[in-house]
Amino acid sequence: MEDLYEKTIKEELVYQGDYLTIVNSIVELPNGKQAKRDMIRHPGAVAILAFIDDDKILMVEQFRKPVEKILLEIPAGKINIGEDPLQCAKRELEEETGYKSDSFVYLGKFAPAPGFCDEYIHLFKATKLASGKACFDDDEFINVKIYSIKEIKNMIKEGKIEDAKTMASLIYIS
Amino acid sequence: MEDLYEKTIKEELVYQGDYLTIVNSIVELPNGKQAKRDMIRHPGAVAILAFIDDDKILMVEQFRKPVEKILLEIPAGKINIGEDPLQCAKRELEEETGYKSDSFVYLGKFAPAPGFCDEYIHLFKATKLASGKACFDDDEFINVKIYSIKEIKNMIKEGKIEDAKTMASLIYIS
Repeated sequence: MEDLYEKTIKEELVYQGDYLTIVNSIVELPNGKQAKRDMIRHPGAVAILAFIDDDKILMVEQFRKPVEKILLEIPAGKINIGEDPLQCAKRELEEETGYKSDSFVYLGKFAPAPGFCDEYIHLFKATKLASGKACFDDDEFINVKIYSIKEIKNMIKEGKIEDAKTMASLIYIS
Repeated sequence: MEDLYEKTIKEELVYQGDYLTIVNSIVELPNGKQAKRDMIRHPGAVAILAFIDDDKILMVEQFRKPVEKILLEIPAGKINIGEDPLQCAKRELEEETGYKSDSFVYLGKFAPAPGFCDEYIHLFKATKLASGKACFDDDEFINVKIYSIKEIKNMIKEGKIEDAKTMASLIYIS
């Protein structure tokens, strides 16, 4: 196997946002030459397949400014500094949907955009949901929906769901 | 349905990279208050499910600097300015794997990180592959692999595949 590793020669912070950091890095390629890599540092996130019964899950509808569209997605949210992914998943599920659960199972993690961003999304399955009270962040506006897994798969193929983490998460339960 | 739309009040370019642009935007929320949104502008990309027979597809192994790991992914690449996604898919398949095809079918598009990035990945299925010659970009080092869909699904559940676009793409053929 060809060695693929790229060694960091220099790294420079070019932008510090509220939670996104942009780093410009010079790397040494496997052939000894150098290349530039712009990278986004992200705190990581969680996403939740929250089963309301054997077949139906909670979905959230929200406006996504970067794509200027309302998207239908599984509940998800950014990890706070020092927060455990499981605690984050419990918090985000309740904040976004009003449902609580103590039955969380870890399914795995995935990288949404590993070509330019270090974000990992930790995926949980939640069952035995109990109604609580939704408590959105100040700048969050969300509609909660319920769909069966089959309906969600159909909406993906019809182009009505565009969110990759929702698609990726279904592989873990298929 | 609650109106979820966020109107742009102000937008400022904060970083211009080779292909990533960072924009800081002030939006008006549905409740009339204002919020800040950091957003990454991305040129968009393609990904290809390239079937070498009825069951096996081409995968590429490459070092992903943001996550400091070698990842196994379906072939994919950024769209050049003005490039048609289909042309990009044909180009990237040959550049990354050495295989060519004239049998491309469009499966759909998805947004890997719509919370902070406007990237869409256009997904194609390619069949009737013919051997050509791989021709990597100057800064690209890739190993080509072949796996069955079942092997890939197992590797996802075992945590051996972490790339979300590879996971998302499987929903279109399941």
